[in-house]
Amino acid sequence: MLDEAVIIAAVTVLGVLEQAYFSLQVIYARRKYSVSPPATTGPPEFERLFRAQANCSEYFPIFIIVLWMSGLFFSQGVSSLCGLVYLYARLRYFHGYSESTQGRLAPLYLSAQVLWMLIGSSALGVILTFCRVHLDLDLLYWLRSALMLD
Amino acid sequence: MLDEAVIIAAVTVLGVLEQAYFSLQVIYARRKYSVSPPATTGPPEFERLFRAQANCSEYFPIFIIVLWMSGLFFSQGVSSLCGLVYLYARLRYFHGYSESTQGRLAPLYLSAQVLWMLIGSSALGVILTFCRVHLDLDLLYWLRSALMLD
Amino acid sequence: MLDEAVIIAAVTVLGVLEQAYFSLQVIYARRKYSVSPPATTGPPEFERLFRAQANCSEYFPIFIIVLWMSGLFFSQGVSSLCGLVYLYARLRYFHGYSESTQGRLAPLYLSAQVLWMLIGSSALGVILTFCRVHLDLDLLYWLRSALMLD
Repeated sequence: MLDEAVIIAAVTVLGVLEQAYFSLQVIYARRKYSVSPPATTGPPEFERLFRAQANCSEYFPIFIIVLWMSGLFFSQGVSSLCGLVYLYARLRYFHGYSESTQGRLAPLYLSAQVLWMLIGSSALGVILTFCRVHLDLDLLYWLRSALMLD
Repeated sequence: MLDEAVIIAAVTVLGVLEQAYFSLQVIYARRKYSVSPPATTGPPEFERLFRAQANCSEYFPIFIIVLWMSGLFFSQGVSSLCGLVYLYARLRYFHGYSESTQGRLAPLYLSAQVLWMLIGSSALGVILTFCRVHLDLDLLYWLRSALMLD
Repeated sequence: MLDEAVIIAAVTVLGVLEQAYFSLQVIYARRKYSVSPPATTGPPEFERLFRAQANCSEYFPIFIIVLWMSGLFFSQGVSSLCGLVYLYARLRYFHGYSESTQGRLAPLYLSAQVLWMLIGSSALGVILTFCRVHLDLDLLYWLRSALMLD
């Protein structure tokens, strides 16, 4: 099972590195704008960067969960590709948000769309596997036959 | 292994959908009460909803981790059931909290109780597996013999 | 696969218990300093404890992800050991931070170092597995031969 999930694992490690990069940016911003912990408020530039990192952190577990659900139960290729697009969108979101609140919107919508694709493919993969395992119903095979693809 | 975890995976996807629902509620509330990001403070109605979502998000990774530990090392059936009760408790918590700070308490206690059950069954499952694999000690078999169930 | 990951699973459950302990400390502090939800601000003692728990919660999913990536793709022994050191550093961080903002620094650096070790071993493990599975290139074997260890 592990060998078949190594590309998902690579996207996961890449995502962790991106989160580490965001965290470091907050630490640099704390120094630059003299906002010492535990304070989380300060000049707007700092607050935008802080919220950008907080938002990325909040969605990161959700992202990793659906990346793996989709990768294991649906398709490793589709999930990895979605995962890379998500990480790219989050990078643009982070930089866009640190410049202006408006600048976060376009990449935020992109990241949300990709996340919904991963949620959808997770749900589909889990439903198909459930039907096959517990209802002895191979919907994929049935679908292919119906479409006369076989 | 995947086939035996498909019900846990289904509960996981359901949990992700619930988190997505909570996030959408915060977005609607930001519009309704005119609280633009990066601000996180505003009228009490908004702040309660914001904290409700933040609290659910904070516990979501913990929940998913013990759901899977308990499902893989203890019992898929017990874990899935606990998982469904947890998600139901969190839904009632979210709606209760958005109405009043008092309204969050009963479902919060329920969600905490279910979370402790998942932590307990995870710990038990891991300890039993550890004894079997690394100490060559089948405590489950020993327990059943002691109780003369075999 | 599960049997070979039981020590990682044990560290995971220990980590969940630590997070539960931190959460309980925040609940006690809310009572002690009379800071009722949804408020998250109050006397400095409360705010430090609140931020300490928030910071631990934020890093917990990252920690669990690299613990498992490193444990599954690199080495269960190395990862479990790093995991235990990380949990110990986080405990000292939490208590240090609740006493003074200065007191959080030394254990925070330790936890960051261990986290980077886990990220590094995850990346290495994933790269080695990727080369073996998708490029048919056994770098570990090649490395050992080059060092004349075989």
